Formats: sequence, C-alpha cells, structure tokens
Amino acid sequence: MGKDFPTRAENYSQWYQDLVIKADLAENSAVRGCMVIKPYGYAIWEKMQAILDKKFKDTGHSNAYFPLFIPKSFFSKEASHVEGFAKECAIVTHYRLRNAKDGSGVEVDPDAKLEEELIIRPTSETIIWHTYRGWIQSYRDLPLLINQWANVVRWEMRTRLFLRTAEFLWQEGHTAHATSEEAIEETKRMLDVYTDFAENSMAMPVLKGVKTASERFAGALDTYCIEALMQDGKALQAGTSHFLGQNFAKAFDVKFTNKEGKQDFVWATSWGVSTRLMGALIMAHSDDEGLVLPPKLAPIQVVIVPIYKNEEQLNALNAVADKISAELREKGISVKYDNRDTHKPGWKFAEYEFKGVPVRIAIGPRDLENGTVEVARRDTKEKSVMQITDLTLKIVHLLDHIQDNLYRKALTFRDDNTHRVDTYEEFKKKLDEGGFILAHWDGTAETEQKIKEETKATIRCIPLNSKKESGKCIKTGNPSEMRVVFARAY
Amino acid sequence: MGKDFPTRAENYSQWYQDLVIKADLAENSAVRGCMVIKPYGYAIWEKMQAILDKKFKDTGHSNAYFPLFIPKSFFSKEASHVEGFAKECAIVTHYRLRNAKDGSGVEVDPDAKLEEELIIRPTSETIIWHTYRGWIQSYRDLPLLINQWANVVRWEMRTRLFLRTAEFLWQEGHTAHATSEEAIEETKRMLDVYTDFAENSMAMPVLKGVKTASERFAGALDTYCIEALMQDGKALQAGTSHFLGQNFAKAFDVKFTNKEGKQDFVWATSWGVSTRLMGALIMAHSDDEGLVLPPKLAPIQVVIVPIYKNEEQLNALNAVADKISAELREKGISVKYDNRDTHKPGWKFAEYEFKGVPVRIAIGPRDLENGTVEVARRDTKEKSVMQITDLTLKIVHLLDHIQDNLYRKALTFRDDNTHRVDTYEEFKKKLDEGGFILAHWDGTAETEQKIKEETKATIRCIPLNSKKESGKCIKTGNPSEMRVVFARAY
Repeated sequence: MGKDFPTRAENYSQWYQDLVIKADLAENSAVRGCMVIKPYGYAIWEKMQAILDKKFKDTGHSNAYFPLFIPKSFFSKEASHVEGFAKECAIVTHYRLRNAKDGSGVEVDPDAKLEEELIIRPTSETIIWHTYRGWIQSYRDLPLLINQWANVVRWEMRTRLFLRTAEFLWQEGHTAHATSEEAIEETKRMLDVYTDFAENSMAMPVLKGVKTASERFAGALDTYCIEALMQDGKALQAGTSHFLGQNFAKAFDVKFTNKEGKQDFVWATSWGVSTRLMGALIMAHSDDEGLVLPPKLAPIQVVIVPIYKNEEQLNALNAVADKISAELREKGISVKYDNRDTHKPGWKFAEYEFKGVPVRIAIGPRDLENGTVEVARRDTKEKSVMQITDLTLKIVHLLDHIQDNLYRKALTFRDDNTHRVDTYEEFKKKLDEGGFILAHWDGTAETEQKIKEETKATIRCIPLNSKKESGKCIKTGNPSEMRVVFARAY
Repeated sequence: MGKDFPTRAENYSQWYQDLVIKADLAENSAVRGCMVIKPYGYAIWEKMQAILDKKFKDTGHSNAYFPLFIPKSFFSKEASHVEGFAKECAIVTHYRLRNAKDGSGVEVDPDAKLEEELIIRPTSETIIWHTYRGWIQSYRDLPLLINQWANVVRWEMRTRLFLRTAEFLWQEGHTAHATSEEAIEETKRMLDVYTDFAENSMAMPVLKGVKTASERFAGALDTYCIEALMQDGKALQAGTSHFLGQNFAKAFDVKFTNKEGKQDFVWATSWGVSTRLMGALIMAHSDDEGLVLPPKLAPIQVVIVPIYKNEEQLNALNAVADKISAELREKGISVKYDNRDTHKPGWKFAEYEFKGVPVRIAIGPRDLENGTVEVARRDTKEKSVMQITDLTLKIVHLLDHIQDNLYRKALTFRDDNTHRVDTYEEFKKKLDEGGFILAHWDGTAETEQKIKEETKATIRCIPLNSKKESGKCIKTGNPSEMRVVFARAY
C-alpha cells in the first residue's frame, strides 16, 4: 500500500500496473503471461459473477461445464474459426512424466505421446457444438440456452494484468435456436444484459454497436459489442455477443426437425465477458490516490475506523461501531470494522482510500459525546459529520449517490472526449488527444485497414443508435451513409 | 428419461452410469476421460458450491485464483509430492499451431516449442507455495486462509463419470500458519466443515478419520478424511484435509519472522472436495426408479403438475398453482410449475420422479372443488391429500422431514453394513458382502499392503472417535491397540 506510484498524467500505463499490484488485485505469476488473482481482486470478480449469473438465469439460461481440452481436428471444421483462433494456443502433446535418469527431476515420457494433440480451449464453440449434436433433434429441444464459467487460454505475446493474459477467466454463453430471427434476438438481448451490467453495476457508460466485417469474431456473421472509454482516451471492448448463423451447426452437423417435420441446421449465438472487465473497472474510475470502486462491486462498501487513545475509549467505540455495523449489514451492506491495534488511524485511512472503499466512517470519543460520526466519500473525498440516529438510511442513500455520481462522471468524461470530425487531418489530430471519434467511412475493408496502418485507430463499432447521415469518407472521400466510431484501443 | 436401465441388484455399476446419463447429469465427451456436466447436474454442483463457499467464508477464508499451468521444475521441488503427483498428467509442450502444408487442417508448429514444459495442475500446492513466498514475511501476514475453485487434470486411465475423470472441478484450500498447532487445528476445522456439509446438506453420514502413512497425500504429514458408504457396500472418500507440516514451505523457501524476531518456515494445510461428491450423492440415495435428491441440494425442490381436460380447467388450475408457487418461493423453496401441453401428467410424474425432485404436487379440477392437492414424496413414494390453506407450512416441514429421513436411512444402511471382525476368514467373507469392516491391524505398511493385494481392501481410515482396544492383527496376529476401518473402495 502506498502512493509511491506515478500519476495518470505522468505514466498512465505504469499507473495502471502499479495500482493493480499495490492494491492487491493481481500479480504476475511464475508462468509467463498468466496472472494470480489475489483475494481482494477475486472478491470484485465474484461480485461481477454473481450479478451477471443472476441476469443470465433471469433471461432463461442454465450453467453447464464442457471440457478444458479440444481435439486438434475440431479446429479445422469451421474454416474461418481456425484462421481466427487456433494458432496461438497451448497444446498438450503428452500425458506422462518420468524420473530423469540423471536424477535431475522429471522429464516428459516420450512413450506417452497423445495420438491427437489437445488444445486448451481458447473459446469453446467447437467442443460445445460437437456436444449439442447429441442434444438437439427436434424444435422441442430449442432454444437451448447455456452458459459456462471457465478458464480459457490464448497464447498472447504481450500481456498486461487483467487486460490481456494468456489464461483468463470468463463466461461464455452458447445458445441454439430454431430460426435466424430468434438467434439474432438472443444476440441483442445478451448485448443488453452486458450494457445493463456495465452501466448500472460497473457505473461505466458503454456504446452499443456492431463490428465491421474485419473485426468480427472468427466464425460469426455479426459481432455485437459494447465499447467503453478509458481515462487515457483509449477504447476498451468490454463484451461481445455473436450471431453465428448456421456456421457451427453446419461444421458439426447439428440439425433439427422443425414443426413442419423438415430438417434444418440450427442457428447459433455466443457471447462472453471476461476478467478483462476488471481492467476496465479499474481504469474507468480510479485516480491518482488509488482505486475507486462503485459501491455495487466493492467487496467492502463501508469501513469503520475507531480513533482512540486508550482501551477504555476503544471499548466504548467498539460497542457503538458494532451496533452501526449490525444495522448496515441488516440492509445488505458489507461493512468492515477495523479496530486492529497494530496500525494507526492515519495508516488505515490511507489503506482504505487506496483500496477504493466507497465510504469511510471514523468515530472517536468526541463523536460519542455528540452522537455523531465523520463520514468520508472516496469518490469526491468530501467529509461530513452525521448523526448516528439516522446513519443507516443516510449511508444507504450515500452509496446509491456514489454509484450514480461515478456513472455521471464517466459519462461526462466520455461526452467531453467524443468528437465528430470530417477531415483526415482533424481525425489524426483528435486521435492523438484520445477519445471516441465519430467519422464517415466508405464501408470498405481496404480503407479501414489503411486507416489502421496509418493511425493505429480501429473502427470500434457501428453504433446501434446512429442515424443515417450523408457524408464523405475521411480517408477516400467516397460517399458514406453513417458515422462510425474510431479509436485507439486496448 | 425412462426406466430402461438395470436395477442396483442386477448391475450396480451400470445402474450408476445409466442413471447419470439418463437423468441428464453428465455425459462422456469427445475427449477421453473428460466429462460434460449437463445443466441439471451442474445445478446440483452449484448448490454444493454455494453452501461450501459460505462455510469457507464463515470460517475466515477468501477465494483467489492461481494459474492453470505449473512449470515442470516445480514438481521436482518437494520430493514425495513429485512421486505421488507429477506422473500421470497433461503436459503442454507447444504454443502454436500452423496450417498443414497438405491442406488437411492444422498441425503443431515445431518452432513453437516451450523451453520448459508446463503441467496442467493436478493440484496446486507447488504454484501456490511459490506464490506465497512473496506474500509472507512476518507473523502479521499469518494465518493466510485461501481457497480456490478450479478445474484440475489427472490423466486417469480408467474413468467413470463424476467418480474418476481426467478433468474435474474442485475447490482446494491452501492455508499458511505460524505454528504447527494452528495448522493442525485448521486441518481438523476443515474436516469438520466437510463433515457438516456431507451430513447436513448431502444427508450422507461419514466416518471421520486419518489415513495410514501409505494412503497419505503426497507431501502431507497427515491426511484426514471423511469416508462414506455407498449402497453397493463400497467406500467412497468424500473429502480430505491435509496437514502438510513445513514440507512445502521448505521446498519453496517460505519463511516468516515470528513475534520473537526469529525466522522460521511456515506451517501449511490443504483441503479439497470435488465433483466426485456428485457421484457420492447419486449413489448414497438413489433407487431403481431413478435419482433421489436431498431437498437441500435439489435444483427443483417442488414440482407442481396440473391435471386437466380442457383449457378452462387449465386456466383455473394455473391461477391456483401460481398462488401456491409464489407462496412457496416466498419461503425460499425452488418450485417448478410444469403446465406444458406437450406432455401428459403421467409422463411428467415419471420424469420428475426419475430426476429426484423431492416433492410433487398434483392438482386437478376435483382438488379445486375440495380446496386440496395431492402431495407425493420421492423418498418414500407416499402420497397424501393436503388442504391448500396451510400447504406452504406443511411443505416446508415435509422438505425438512425428507432431508432427515434420507440421512437416517443412509445411517441405518451404514450401521447395518458395518461389521467388527476378528479373523481373516471372517474378514474376507464380510468383505464380499460389502460394507465397513472394523478390524485390528498391526500398524505396519507391509501388512496393509499384503491385505490389499490379497483382498483389494484398503484401510479407509483410522477413525478419530475410535477407542483403544487391545487385540490381534487379523492378518499377522501381532498385537494391535485399536480397530481401523477396512473396505473396498471407489
């Protein structure tokens, strides 16, 4: 814990990495590119999981679990999927170690070579659609609405804690439908679920849109996404929902008998969010004094710190703090009362500020006399004195208020950093300042690629809510019907 | 769904496998030894997870996540651990695929060979203790109480759904302590947590005991366990809690400064239960008509089936069923109202019976007139007519009663199948009948091994509650101070 780390302005990237490590969220492991998610970080992830899992179940989905391993041959079955996915991955080739003859330890037993290599899942469409073949015969078996919480591995060369790691945790929904319309509806429904989660739980505004052809998921007909803006002006893709058409059903021969008694291939979707959301959450709200967590995802929502000089005072404070804690917990608020005598109040204040605890309550002997406490907000750093009598209700409201405030602050930031530009010069200038750029594009992959090569900007999405507007492509001058969203991205 | 599967008496092993598959709990996957856990099975596992997770947190533990991969060299660091664990495992040797030149698909890129092979974790002591080295400096950092929910892989040759699979899901607790006493206390505390879960949530009585030296976890000084008795008379190890002494701290050089300012190695425990508990649950209670689930773990606790001839009747029944459902849900009971018109009531009765739903409520037009419903228990197959007016309370009590009844039934079965024997002849005879056998043993690994070779019986545990009793070893006649528990086991 401490402030010996750079400000965002000094070095945003280092600020992020130091914050993740010093706030005990995660650290690099002994295995290249793989992280250890520490208890405090994992507690935030558990809160995310609980909220998302409930939303998935409320929309009719069930959880299941499919194997970690995928036979190599499965990747060759869906042509565009193999191009996009099967290359950089962890490959299991052997199943036994033996003692090294020189006594130096263990070595791979060459006699235990697998007939067919197994790939650690980078995503599970192939193994799941292979399985669905046995589950789906008739329209009565549809829709099949399944989600999986799992670890996946993509052998990334450059990794950053939470944002890009070789192994990460995620959920992947895989659904099967009788019609194209139902599958598209599902794709959009899950995008809405992610949007709701990002905005209302993470307090992070997102743009809803659809990816261009070249940014689509490998094997999808359409990839929908939510895009968030980080404080350094870079975009972050926070969730995707794919309409897969009949591609995987055809690759794995999954047919069903429809109501008319005819055979047809099944329509598919898949959708996922990952521990990458932890990176988004950290970067969306935190400041130069450390983490800032929205109350809905904070493992500790309220911390109570006693200020005392002797044991008698502490005993009196303990009684009051226990009562306050009990009343807050009654309202479903997670409270920590930190009366450790190994650390001073000032150290504790700094610690919980750094860890992003939304509300701090300090209570000392004079407060006891007055029937008051001092309440400090992490988001604005404001302090106020409150009466103990109606404290619980005020804290409940304060937590709601902080949640709203974080959202509004992030929204204002995004609005201030979203620009409409009409020339390539202006485009490049604004890009360097950071933010979302709304610009006309001629709709070709060539132009998109050229802009990317020249500026490192990608089309984050074609916004779902955008209006038709005639214009000229910033790069080619060719006609365009709509602005798309460009940004440099994580 | 259906009864076209053998009875327990006909073929217990086939009965189990068919039940797991036909009740939609799990199935074999395309990858040898790996299972797919289907939604209904996974829903039971989720209930297990939720109850256990709360118990872990209530006893002061936090969750975290450590990498899937373990560098090969880590296994050589703790000598007995490598002997016990590192042999049959999945080994990652490469990190990239490439297109095969003959166009046949993808192949392993020989240029992408890892410098050091990575092992898919069979258990995580090594990577976790490597990590703890950076987390523990002083006695103030202790105890460190961490749990992980994860998938692990052990390359088993003979696999059976849930009971023994190459990949399985589990939780593994890994704790660090300042003293041997504290670590032993933790080991026993977690054994008590498992016992409480097995008996009160799974309704499955277990014997608490300690393993003999030859049955210990690789690297442990003591392995505590809970052992359950299945209906075929075989024992099943349902959970283990290990006192690891300072073995892993020494192997990974994890020292701390104690209160006296001196350096010492840290004391460790680890403990785990897995999806194997699913197998135990199924085998402990189910019968020749299908699954029997204890109410505390049943995904659907109450199913309501309407019996009607026309839409008017159905509408009237819907209104009443919705009211009953709402009231039951208010009490935290999970209810399914199945008014699908695609299946007849008889089919539904058979389906939910097969799936082990504890309570079935049937309601028809005559019931409406009388203000009654028909309530059927899955455990005893008893039916009774109940008034709707106080139905909720009665169902709450009935579910408790079913939970108790399942436990008592399993306990009676175990008592009836636990035998004290004093001669080797009697021992072999009773073994063939199945059950736990309490017998004297001379305490040597040689005798234990000889008995195992000759009879396939292992010492399941030295019970914690057993009284000293002078006797003679059933095999060698040498003096013994206590009876131990023998059985053939899963």
